[in-house]
Amino acid sequence: MRIESPRYTERFGSVRINDVQKVLELDSGKAKDLPLHENIAVQKIEEDVIKNFEEKMAIVIPTMDEKLKLFEGVISGVPHECLIIVVSNSQRKKVDRFRMERDTLQQYCHFTRRQALIVHQKDELLGRALAEAGYTDLLGEDGKVRNGKAEGMVVAMLMAMLARKDYVGFIDADNYFPGAVWEYVRCFASGFSMARSPYSMVRILWRYKPKITSGLYFKKWGRVSEITNKCVNSLISNNTGFETDIISTGNAGEHAMSLRLAEILPYASGYAVEPQELVSIFEGFGGILPMSHQTAAKHGVEIFQIETRNPHLHEDKGDEHLGDMLMTGLGAIYHSPICEGETRQLIMSELLQRNLLTPEEEPPKPRLSAPPKKIDLTKFFKVMEEHLPSYSALESE
Amino acid sequence: MRIESPRYTERFGSVRINDVQKVLELDSGKAKDLPLHENIAVQKIEEDVIKNFEEKMAIVIPTMDEKLKLFEGVISGVPHECLIIVVSNSQRKKVDRFRMERDTLQQYCHFTRRQALIVHQKDELLGRALAEAGYTDLLGEDGKVRNGKAEGMVVAMLMAMLARKDYVGFIDADNYFPGAVWEYVRCFASGFSMARSPYSMVRILWRYKPKITSGLYFKKWGRVSEITNKCVNSLISNNTGFETDIISTGNAGEHAMSLRLAEILPYASGYAVEPQELVSIFEGFGGILPMSHQTAAKHGVEIFQIETRNPHLHEDKGDEHLGDMLMTGLGAIYHSPICEGETRQLIMSELLQRNLLTPEEEPPKPRLSAPPKKIDLTKFFKVMEEHLPSYSALESE
Repeated sequence: MRIESPRYTERFGSVRINDVQKVLELDSGKAKDLPLHENIAVQKIEEDVIKNFEEKMAIVIPTMDEKLKLFEGVISGVPHECLIIVVSNSQRKKVDRFRMERDTLQQYCHFTRRQALIVHQKDELLGRALAEAGYTDLLGEDGKVRNGKAEGMVVAMLMAMLARKDYVGFIDADNYFPGAVWEYVRCFASGFSMARSPYSMVRILWRYKPKITSGLYFKKWGRVSEITNKCVNSLISNNTGFETDIISTGNAGEHAMSLRLAEILPYASGYAVEPQELVSIFEGFGGILPMSHQTAAKHGVEIFQIETRNPHLHEDKGDEHLGDMLMTGLGAIYHSPICEGETRQLIMSELLQRNLLTPEEEPPKPRLSAPPKKIDLTKFFKVMEEHLPSYSALESE
Repeated sequence: MRIESPRYTERFGSVRINDVQKVLELDSGKAKDLPLHENIAVQKIEEDVIKNFEEKMAIVIPTMDEKLKLFEGVISGVPHECLIIVVSNSQRKKVDRFRMERDTLQQYCHFTRRQALIVHQKDELLGRALAEAGYTDLLGEDGKVRNGKAEGMVVAMLMAMLARKDYVGFIDADNYFPGAVWEYVRCFASGFSMARSPYSMVRILWRYKPKITSGLYFKKWGRVSEITNKCVNSLISNNTGFETDIISTGNAGEHAMSLRLAEILPYASGYAVEPQELVSIFEGFGGILPMSHQTAAKHGVEIFQIETRNPHLHEDKGDEHLGDMLMTGLGAIYHSPICEGETRQLIMSELLQRNLLTPEEEPPKPRLSAPPKKIDLTKFFKVMEEHLPSYSALESE
């Protein structure tokens, strides 16, 4: 893979935010010794380097009643070396869609000889293991994990830790192009290969997100993303005193983290999860509040934003969720202890303008769950490890 | 890459036509010694094997006034080891679109350090070289290459021979997904790696070809392809005496050949080019007519059909060309000396049904140009080799 070198890096306390880097070439060929000058503006990430990172990476596919053909396509795009972790909240009554997903995954793993884990979000054992570990933040009154993609993501992080992986990446199950999925994972691997800190995050910026109207219109910016980015950038600008537009990936669903970073961040519910990750990093390591983790603060937290070559074409789920998405995302920024007056005002004006709020109201507070590291992982592992084979999609032979 | 083993092979004289093979995994990870039983139904083609074939392959992108963003995207998906050959018939007057294409390609090659050739179909030197080599089949009255994608393809084959490549693959410039382009090339390489004959061809079957209507509808079969395939299969069935539906790729624009095969086939103009390739192979090596090339007949000619993981999403050029496409394609089959009564009748009934013909008419005869090998290649090379640097997109340093 060939990718732009990070040309500009914004610093916020011990957080290093790299400017968007574009992918130039999906497949940059065999390993060669390059003359030094060729690695100035553009970096070639060799195939072996990418595969070594993929080997240490779990790719999480959160899914809920998604079309099986799309689901299978997404899986087929994930590079072989990655461990696939499917966290499904699909229906089990009437039609057991979860079972269809598991069958599909098993058949796929059988023929491709690869490893995958699949767990239902409402799995009883999972709920019990979390309760024993003291991680009640994720649980509902029935003792099972609450609904929501964000809760599924945290479950997947724990599964990745259980599988002794070093990195975890998230990819939505509704992507039409296996080739785009493949590129996301390579972007993750390339980002981690450039990181100088073990506490790192890679967020994907889609080159285009085609909107299907009468034809195809290649829209560069999602509507919600644009506003979220503006508000996140305002938060950084007003805290550092230097105006910036460094963040382009505030709502990036496709993103990855080193588990060392993932386990020390708190997570928000619902659509707030992706922007909250940034907010949590800024709170923990921006230097405004006390550093939340000494070792990470020393190494620094590194954020990469990588723009793909492939456009992003996914299931059109309609527009109804966009207001909710915007509101909860901005709520995460608004209620941060480091959010000052200017940014709060900006957020209010964006929401008022779109009639999502009245002037007397405030955007909702995010519901946060504790960083995974805060729970008793030994207990969680103990319960789960014993039953791990039952979550595996590849039969042992 | 992981791909189904050819499960069924149809024989037609010394032609071996393999049944459709599906891609299972885009990226099958590191090289490993597999237990023998794992390679029965599914083959893993190792990364090194693929790259070794890519190194010997030229990827041709025929283009005419295509959007530059699409053009650049397609290029970015071609694996690095391949030589890119752009044959452009874009306008040069008023707006010099050819120059824009060359600039785009040069900029891209500069940053990715890769080789590419670009030639305009109306290039004067090219016309002169062809005339000197005695290849007037391709030339118009002005001494330049005639218009048409098929003519551009033959030019590209000659350029690939000039660049001493062993394989040549064709990819249209109007593809929206670089990741799909990348997969096509890997399919080509995988097919050639499975071939037992140096005279081989790989044809791509798209998993789906989404049609943009009010939403996305994933259509498995193009309308024209379905009819063309039916008629090609009728041609085989009636000549061998065994009914078959082996051909699913009669109109495959995305296809590749070993140059040893490419140089001994005649080529049709216009939309007939892809079906004619099959017809030419059946005529030359099906055993109905005398074998057209002894060595190839001895080795056998091998055809692979590979179904991609990615859907095919390309510029919608409207429906007007479909009638023409169907008619000229079927014309190539109809006028073949091995086309018997049954197949002729089938073709006529398909065309009558769609009001493309009256019962008194016949579909048009294809306009054929001689196999490249029949011309004086030494003369062609002599003229062109001297000016080769002027067609190169990577400045020498």
